[in-house]
Parts: sequence; structure tokens; C-alpha cells
Amino acid sequence: MNYADWVRREFRELGSAHGLGFVPREEIDQRLVRLRADMEKKELEGLLVIQKMDRYYLSGTTQDGFLYVPLEGEALLAVRKELERAKVESPLDKVVAFSSFREIPSLLQAGCGRVPRLLGLELDVLPVKDYFRFQEIFPGTAMVDSSPLIREIRKTKSPYEIGLMRTAGEISRKIYEEAKKILKEGMTEIEFAGLLDAAAKSQGHEGLLRVRSLNYEAYSWHILSGWTGGIVSQSDSPMGGLGLSPAFPVGASRKVMKAHEPILVDFGICYHGYQVDQTRMFSIGKMEPKFVRASQVCREIHDALLEEVRPGADCEKIFLKSLRLADQLGYRENYLGPPGLQTRFIGHGIGLELNEFPFLAQGQAFTLEEGMTFAIEPKIVFGGEGSAGFENSVAVARQGYEILTPADPDIVEV
Amino acid sequence: MNYADWVRREFRELGSAHGLGFVPREEIDQRLVRLRADMEKKELEGLLVIQKMDRYYLSGTTQDGFLYVPLEGEALLAVRKELERAKVESPLDKVVAFSSFREIPSLLQAGCGRVPRLLGLELDVLPVKDYFRFQEIFPGTAMVDSSPLIREIRKTKSPYEIGLMRTAGEISRKIYEEAKKILKEGMTEIEFAGLLDAAAKSQGHEGLLRVRSLNYEAYSWHILSGWTGGIVSQSDSPMGGLGLSPAFPVGASRKVMKAHEPILVDFGICYHGYQVDQTRMFSIGKMEPKFVRASQVCREIHDALLEEVRPGADCEKIFLKSLRLADQLGYRENYLGPPGLQTRFIGHGIGLELNEFPFLAQGQAFTLEEGMTFAIEPKIVFGGEGSAGFENSVAVARQGYEILTPADPDIVEV
Repeated sequence: MNYADWVRREFRELGSAHGLGFVPREEIDQRLVRLRADMEKKELEGLLVIQKMDRYYLSGTTQDGFLYVPLEGEALLAVRKELERAKVESPLDKVVAFSSFREIPSLLQAGCGRVPRLLGLELDVLPVKDYFRFQEIFPGTAMVDSSPLIREIRKTKSPYEIGLMRTAGEISRKIYEEAKKILKEGMTEIEFAGLLDAAAKSQGHEGLLRVRSLNYEAYSWHILSGWTGGIVSQSDSPMGGLGLSPAFPVGASRKVMKAHEPILVDFGICYHGYQVDQTRMFSIGKMEPKFVRASQVCREIHDALLEEVRPGADCEKIFLKSLRLADQLGYRENYLGPPGLQTRFIGHGIGLELNEFPFLAQGQAFTLEEGMTFAIEPKIVFGGEGSAGFENSVAVARQGYEILTPADPDIVEV
Repeated sequence: MNYADWVRREFRELGSAHGLGFVPREEIDQRLVRLRADMEKKELEGLLVIQKMDRYYLSGTTQDGFLYVPLEGEALLAVRKELERAKVESPLDKVVAFSSFREIPSLLQAGCGRVPRLLGLELDVLPVKDYFRFQEIFPGTAMVDSSPLIREIRKTKSPYEIGLMRTAGEISRKIYEEAKKILKEGMTEIEFAGLLDAAAKSQGHEGLLRVRSLNYEAYSWHILSGWTGGIVSQSDSPMGGLGLSPAFPVGASRKVMKAHEPILVDFGICYHGYQVDQTRMFSIGKMEPKFVRASQVCREIHDALLEEVRPGADCEKIFLKSLRLADQLGYRENYLGPPGLQTRFIGHGIGLELNEFPFLAQGQAFTLEEGMTFAIEPKIVFGGEGSAGFENSVAVARQGYEILTPADPDIVEV
């Protein structure tokens, strides 16, 4: 039997038996309907989807290639290599082979009857070099940024997607239970992180986390103890840790974890592409009272903010409320970073990427809607000394919210 | 003490004590000298370096921001957030704070005396949206792609860089030793992978691997057993495995590893940003003779190709020799992929990224030079059935080569 025949005959069953999980047709159909409604408003005749997570969202597969969504007519998925596997993974009907970008116009002509005059491209991530190539192969086509539109429809999740995030949250809960057994005095942060990651992988964690960005990199092992928690982050988050080198200067380090230090465990989980994020505080023996108090304050702020979470709530107001609370509770100076280096967000949309809509941040105009999912993370940082935090991933429900990361919320003393 | 003071006073020593390792000034100086020689040939007045690994290579830090290299005068490093840490990490003298892209022209004017008329940007990775912004803020400046130039100087490594890769290779050797103890019948691929990754992290592996690409993602845990080794890859490599979901359809899966199957362990290691790649074959009990033979052939091809490795050698010829050898040894059909899906490369440059120059591939004109480092990886794939392979990372030496990944080359039976 040749390879293509083997994939056609065996792959669906083998994949299912090994937990691969294929995206249902209704999901893709509904997403395309929503996308097209927005395309129509913008008078976009077609959308060329290149970025991997956008393609996965709209086609059900990440096999290399592109997806073309015309305003009318069937979507066309073109696959560079694993055509047969893509056909199993994607519920789309029009799946064709291609080998070079140059073929795209003729594929669109053949598959969809025309080349669009106004084409949407993901200009927030598409490299300039590819854009120049598209200008060459689509000489009569105007190109506009379609990313805001795709990000807009991705910002509310379906029950199917929330179900996957719930599973990710359940993996996360198990890992935080496991952490209680793994954490020992004298371990380095990175040893602890590695064992947690191994436990998570064996439960279905995919290992990689994803951010929509050229330079920001996500990683699961954001484990900081004592003074490494007091180090500011290179990215827009409250603290970054020491890391392993200037090439990877974030997250768990070679620092040995000691008794009484605050140990911040912020460990992201990815299941079938869907991520959850959460933070819990640990210590070996009793935690220093200063950090116990700061941890409690973070949880108090978190709980108070969740009271605001429901469809219609203003995201910036939730952020501003968190500032007022931190102030009232005596943590103005150290809330979300040391003085002068404080971040200006308290939550970020989460799903296939860690920086999805909405942002709960200063100057960002988002209103909560049912089905939105975000991580909410009050953190307190004492520069060079340590930090405390509390974080859950939540989904906005019809009335209120659902916590997707049900790990034990208390400080864990081992 | 405020945070900035703490970093200024404590960070270098704390970082060194915890194995961070700072890039020496001579390294950065030499790289800038080489870069400028090439800039002069291209009449580039300045280079704006945005991409993280290019910035690390030329400045010694990955703290968020940009690096400006004028043809004449000092380089200017601008940092968005962790200014004080960047000053510790980078040996450059001109390190300034900035907060928005809009400030770039005035920073260049103030720091370097002028705004360039011909500016190099990394157009192979820079998002279009950023490019449009640069067009706005540099209205009188022409912009060209500087990536070929940066990739060109990055393709030969200094003794310092090769030293870091040697350390990565030594971590790798230990991990392959560890693998002999970890691998047990009944384990899933991903459980095995997770434990290897934990062991690697505790030895200094940074967890992430890096590729210069919008959509290709690298990961360490490319562990395939039996039929999962017979699955083609989404990217340009011989086999991809089953993975955990269509969102991450590559690498180790939930498949249970069984006795006698070929188990391909292709586990990348990253140390201080520098990566090595290697593949060894394992089995639980005796490996099926078909795969023992295929594994031996891969090693034989590998050894024969290394005989060609020296400064001046033609990379495409090395690839073509590998095809001839595979043919002579009776593996024409399954060499580098199943029939019809065979890749057309036998080696890829490796360092800060997994797809550096040179490529040992069909249609690629590269000549080996002293200091080049690449992974060489003959692989044989039986579609839907399994695969075998052998891989080392090597450095081109003055005469011949040095193997950077000294793990036991034999098939390991546990």
C-alpha cells in the first residue's frame, strides 16, 4: 500500500484512537459564516489565510499551505505537502495540492472562479517579503489587513472551544496537584519546571504555547522563587524572572529554591491548541508573611474583579477597579510591577494564542461578551526581592463567568 | 534600594553565579566589523535590527527593543523596558530607553547624527504592518532587505559560539545516556519525551528551539516509534510523526512504545541560545532487522558524507552524493521520505536558529567554510510503517570537521 492510500484508509481511526481530536464540520461552518458577515461589511471579496493558528481556526488543520475564503462560494484549502492528512483533519471539501505561491492566482481562478480585486491578508504577522511576492502575483488586486477581522471573530469562543479549554484547565488542576508532590527544598526552579512540564505532557499538554508576535515567545515554565520573582520582564508582563541565559532571560532559572521564599508557579497548558493560564503560590515551609499577605491581596483583587465579569462589562473599567483596589489595600507602589515599571493590563484574551482579544487594560476599549475567554492576573512585585500573584483563566457566561482553571486556590505549603 | 539600582549593583554577579553567561565584548565587536564590511559593499548607511535572534547576535541581549547599526560610528541599542538589565547583558556602550517606534528617527538623529537614506530591515520576517509604520516615520528613506546580509555573517561561527554548541552537544550526550535508563516498554512517546525534556532542562537546555519563519515551529521532542515514524512531516523534513492534535501534529504522540519497534529519538538541545540537533535509534529488546539495516545505512551514509566535509566543499554535491549512496545501498525509494514525498536536503545550518545557512540541498549553492555548523541527517522512511535515521551536528574545521554531538552512535537496545 502506498503512503497516500495508508493515510486515506488508516489515519482517521489511528488518530482518533490516539486522542488527536478532529475539529467538527459545524464548528468550521459557523466560523466561516461569522467571518463572511464581517467580510461583507468591509467589502472584502476574499481572504488569504496564511498564519498557522488562523488557518487552524478556519480549516481544522495546520498542515502547511494556505486557506482562501471567498465572500461567496466554498473555501479552498491548498496544502503543500501532507495533502491526505489535511483531508482527514479538515472538514472542508475543497482541499487541493500546491507547491509554490506563484500558483495561487490560478488556483483561485480554477477553484473559486475569480481572482479578488480586494484581498485581505494578515498584515500584522505576514512578512514583508511575502507581501512583495503577493503584490507581484496579484498585480490588479488591492490588499488590506484582515487580521483585525479574524481576531474579532476569534475573540468569542464556541461551547466546543470552551470545552477544550476546560480540559486544558483540568490538566492544569492535576499538574498543580502534582506540583505539591514534586516541589522539594534544594531543587532549582528549572528542575521543578521540567518535572511539571513532563507531568503536563503526559496528560496531554502540547508543550508549546503560542503568541501572535514576531518577537514575543511564550513558554510554560514561568516559575520564579524569591528574588527571581522580583525581576522585571522583557515583555509587557509584571515580572519575567532570571531565565537561563541572555538568549532566554525569562522563566525558571538555575536558582535553588529555599524554605520560606514565595514560589510563583505560572504554568500555561495547551490542549488541542487551546491554552489556559493560571498562577498559584507555593512555599517550602511557611511563606514569609510579607508575601503571604501580598498573595492574599492578589486573590482578593482577583475575586473582586470576577464580580464584574459578565456580558456588557467594560474591560478598561475592570482594570481601573483593580488599580483602585490595589491602592486601597496598600499596594499602589508594587502592583503589576515595581515603581516606574508597572504594566497597564490585568487580563489578556486567551485561546489559540496568549494575546487574543479582549485586553483588560488601560486605553483598550473592549466590552465583555458571552464566550470570551481571558486570563486575569493580579500580581505584586517587590523589585529584586520577590513577587506574589494569583491567576485564573475564565470564560464569560450568559450571566457572570466560569472559571476554567479549578486548581486549589490556596497557598500551598510543602 | 529601587529596582534599577538593584539591577545595576547586583545583577551581573547574580546572573553569573546562576550560569547566565554574558556575550564577550570582542565577540560583538568582531561581528559588527564583519557586518559593516558587507554593509559597505551594499552601500547601506544603516541597519535596523528588530528580530530577536539577530539582535541577540549583534548586541548580546534579547531585551525588547531595536538595535541600530550605522555604517560608521557606534551601534545604538534602544530598550523598551528592561534598560538596566540590557546594559548588564550587552557589551555595547550606547544603550538608551525608548517606548515607541515613533521615536526611532529622533533617536537615530540624536545618537548617530543622521537618519539614513538607505536603511536595511529584516524583510524576510518583519511584519508588513511594522514596515508600513517605518515607511511613515522614515519618509525620505529607501528600505531594503538586510536579512541575507545578517544571515550571511551568522553562517560562520566563532570559536566562542562553537564552544557553546559543544556544551549543548555535551548536554545532549548526557540526555541520550539518560534515555537508556528512562525508556521502558509501555510508555507513550510523549511520556518518554517529557522525561527527556525534564532531564535536559535540568542540565541547561533552554526548552525552546527556534526557526526563522512565520509558521514553522521547532520543538525538542521529535520522538517517533514504529508506524508514527512512517508519517510525513508538514514541514520540509523527512518525517513528522503523529503529534498530539491537528493543532500540533508533529513529534511525540500518545502512542505506546512497543518491543522491537524502531524508536527514533531526534532531540534538539538549546544552550545559551545555541542549538544542536542529533538523532539516535533506540529499541525495546531487539529491533526488527529491517530497521536495524536501515539505521546502519543511515549511519553509513552519514559517515561517508562527513569524509567530504572541509572548507571549500560544495554543499549540493554532498547532498547528491547522499542520493547516490542511498541508491547503491538499495534505499532509493524510501530515502528522505516515502516515494513522491521525499525532501531534497540532507543538512541544515544550525546555531541560534534551526534553518541557518548553509543548506546541503538540491539547488542550493553553498560552499563550506571553516566555522560553519550544520546538522546532517540521513533518514529512511517506510510510509505508515516506520523510519530510521542518524544525525549529528558538526562544525567545519580548518581541515575536515568536528562532531559537536558525541552521543553513543550505536543503536541502543534497552
